[in-house]
Amino acid sequence: MNAGANNRVTVALGARSYAIAIADGLLDTAMDSLADYAGRDRMIVVTDENVAKLQLPRLTETAGAAGVTLHPIILPPGEATKNWIQLETLTDQLLALGVERGDHIVALGGGVIGDLTGFAAAIVKRGCGFVQIPTTLLAQVDSSVGGKTAINSRAGKNLIGAFHQPGFVLIDPSVLDTLPPRELRAGYAEVVKYGLIDDADFFAWCEAHGADLLAGDRAAQTEAIRRSVTAKARIVAEDETERSGRRALLNLGHTFGHALEAETGFSDALLHGEAVAAGICLAFAYSARRDLCSAADAERVAAHFSDAGLPNGLAAAGVQTDGATLTAHMMHDKKMEGGTLPFLLARGIGETFLARDVDLSDVAAFLDEVD
Amino acid sequence: MNAGANNRVTVALGARSYAIAIADGLLDTAMDSLADYAGRDRMIVVTDENVAKLQLPRLTETAGAAGVTLHPIILPPGEATKNWIQLETLTDQLLALGVERGDHIVALGGGVIGDLTGFAAAIVKRGCGFVQIPTTLLAQVDSSVGGKTAINSRAGKNLIGAFHQPGFVLIDPSVLDTLPPRELRAGYAEVVKYGLIDDADFFAWCEAHGADLLAGDRAAQTEAIRRSVTAKARIVAEDETERSGRRALLNLGHTFGHALEAETGFSDALLHGEAVAAGICLAFAYSARRDLCSAADAERVAAHFSDAGLPNGLAAAGVQTDGATLTAHMMHDKKMEGGTLPFLLARGIGETFLARDVDLSDVAAFLDEVD
Repeated sequence: MNAGANNRVTVALGARSYAIAIADGLLDTAMDSLADYAGRDRMIVVTDENVAKLQLPRLTETAGAAGVTLHPIILPPGEATKNWIQLETLTDQLLALGVERGDHIVALGGGVIGDLTGFAAAIVKRGCGFVQIPTTLLAQVDSSVGGKTAINSRAGKNLIGAFHQPGFVLIDPSVLDTLPPRELRAGYAEVVKYGLIDDADFFAWCEAHGADLLAGDRAAQTEAIRRSVTAKARIVAEDETERSGRRALLNLGHTFGHALEAETGFSDALLHGEAVAAGICLAFAYSARRDLCSAADAERVAAHFSDAGLPNGLAAAGVQTDGATLTAHMMHDKKMEGGTLPFLLARGIGETFLARDVDLSDVAAFLDEVD
Repeated sequence: MNAGANNRVTVALGARSYAIAIADGLLDTAMDSLADYAGRDRMIVVTDENVAKLQLPRLTETAGAAGVTLHPIILPPGEATKNWIQLETLTDQLLALGVERGDHIVALGGGVIGDLTGFAAAIVKRGCGFVQIPTTLLAQVDSSVGGKTAINSRAGKNLIGAFHQPGFVLIDPSVLDTLPPRELRAGYAEVVKYGLIDDADFFAWCEAHGADLLAGDRAAQTEAIRRSVTAKARIVAEDETERSGRRALLNLGHTFGHALEAETGFSDALLHGEAVAAGICLAFAYSARRDLCSAADAERVAAHFSDAGLPNGLAAAGVQTDGATLTAHMMHDKKMEGGTLPFLLARGIGETFLARDVDLSDVAAFLDEVD
C-alpha cells in the first residue's frame, strides 16, 4: 500500500451514514474534507493542551488559508476531563459561541476529547453535528468510530453518555509520530482485538506486521487502521445501539479489562489498552479452561501481546487481587441484563462469541488460579 | 364520551412506537398498565414534593398490592430543578439503585419532572427506558408526548437535552382536580394551540367546551386531552427530531412567548402556558398585519384566550418593553438556522405554517406598535 493513498470507509447507518477518511498528512489539507461541515465560515475545535501544541497548528494554518475562522476550546489533558463540570463548561462555551444544530463541532484529540465533545454535541440543543479527528491510535481504530460518547460518573467510567454518530471521521496516521510509544502499544491492543473477534487472517497479519507498526512504519499503521475501522464500521452498522449482541463483540477483553482498571484505580498504572490486552488474554485463558478453545490458541494470543510489549495476564498487568474482588468490579457493567452479565468468550482465534451462561463465581475461581 | 372509557393513542415511530393511555382513575390501577415496564419487581419513581403528597400514594398503594417495590426519588418542585446539579444527582441515584438499560424509570409529575427524568433516562448507561405519568394539563397534552427532554443551561431554557421517547404514557385526568386553576388555564393554552395549528373544528370545540373544561368537567377534559395527544402523536410521527419543519408547527406562539418569558425572567409572573397564549395571539396579530390572515381570525383567537382567563397580548402578559429588546431574546432560539429564525405564522384558524422569510426588525417594529 502507498502511504498517502486516500482510503475511505463508510459506516452504513441510513440517514446517519458517514465516511471515515484515512490518509497520511490529511490534517494538512483538512479543510478540503471539512468544508462541507464547517458552518458559516467558522469552525469550533475542541482539543486538549497537549494536542493544541502538537497538532492544532496544522489545522489552524489550513483554516487560515481557506478563510475559515477557527474557535479553539482547549481543555486539560487526561481522563479526569471527562466529568460533569467539564461537560457543563464545554456546553456553555458552545452555546456562547452560538453553535447551531447544523454545525459540526470538531473533536481533535484522543478518546477523552472525542467522548466528551461527542457527548456535548449530542445534548446541546438536543443534538448538533460533530467531526472526529482522532490523534491516538486507540481513538483512530476504536473510539472515534461508532458514536459511543460519554463522561464518567461517580459510579464508574462512561456511565453517562449517548449514542451520537459523528458526521465524518478524519484519520491522519502521521499524528502517531508524536504519540508516546506506550500509548501506541496500548492502541495496538484494540487493533489485535479485531483479528481475534472474527478475522483470523488479520490476527496473522498482526503477528507478521505488528512490530513494524509499533516501530513507526507508516504503511503498516495505515493498513492496520484501515482494516480496524472497516471491521468496526461493519459491526456498528449491524447493531448501532448494542441491542442484538453483535456490537457486544467489540467488548472482547473489556469485562476482564474493566476489572483490572477498576482495581488499579483507572490510573496511569494501567492504560485502557493495556487492560484490554490483559483482559483479552484472560478471556482466551478462561475459554481454554472451559474447553471452548484450545490451549494453543490461548497461548498464541498471550505470546503476541507479550511480543508487542503489552501485559498478557494478571501479574503482567500488576494486579495481585483475589478473584472475588475482581468479579465484584464487573457487576457495575453497563451490559448487565436482569442481574446477569454476558461475557465475550472464544472458540478460537477469530471466533469470539457472546456467552450468557457465565457464572461469576466460576470466573472468580479461575482468576484465583491464573497468573 | 363516558368518563373512564379507556382511550389509547399510539405514537407511531417504528421500533420506538409507544402507547398513550387516557382514562379517569387510571392511576389507581396503574400496575395493570405498568407491569410490562417494571423491571425485576421493582419500580423507580421520580417525582416532586408536591406530587409526592397528592398523587404518589395512589401509585404506592397499587404497587404494594401488586408486589412491586417502589423506589421514590423526590425532588424539589419548580423550574429551578431542571438544572445540571439535579441532573447529576438524579443519575447518581439511578446508578446507585442499579438501574439497567431495560428498566423503565417512572416520571410522575409535570413538565419539570418529565423533562428532567426523561433526559436522565436518555443518558444513564447511554439510554434507559422511561414512562411518563403527567400530572398537569400542560404535561398531559404536550410535554409528556414526543420525547423532547431537557434541562436548562446558563444560556437559556431547554438548551441541553435529548430526543428520547418514553416507552409508555399514562394519563389520568383525575389528577387535574388538585391542580391550581391558574395552572389548568396555562395548560389549556396548549390545547387550543392544536386547533389553531391545523384543526379548525377543534378550535370551535374549544370555544364551545373550554369553559366546561376549566370548570372541572371530566368528560370535556378527557376529550381535550385525547384530541390534543392524537394531534401531537401524528405530528411527532411525521417529524420526530424536528428536521422537516413539520414538528416546528407545535411551536406556534412559542417564539413570541419565549421572548415574553425571557423578559419576565422565566418566573411565576408569567407561566409558560400563559406566555404561549399571548405568543399565539401575537403570531396571529402579526400574520394579520402582513395580510396573511384576516383581522377577524386574529380577533377571534384573542377573544377566546381572553374568555379563558389567559393573556392575549403584551399588556395582558404584563410586558412593557420595546420590540428590539424582545426580538433580541428570540436570537437564542434552538431553531436558529444559518443566523435566521423560522417563524410560525397563520393563514387563518387551523392554517399555521412555517415562514422562513421573517425579518426580525419587522417583528420588532410590530411589537413596538401592538398592545
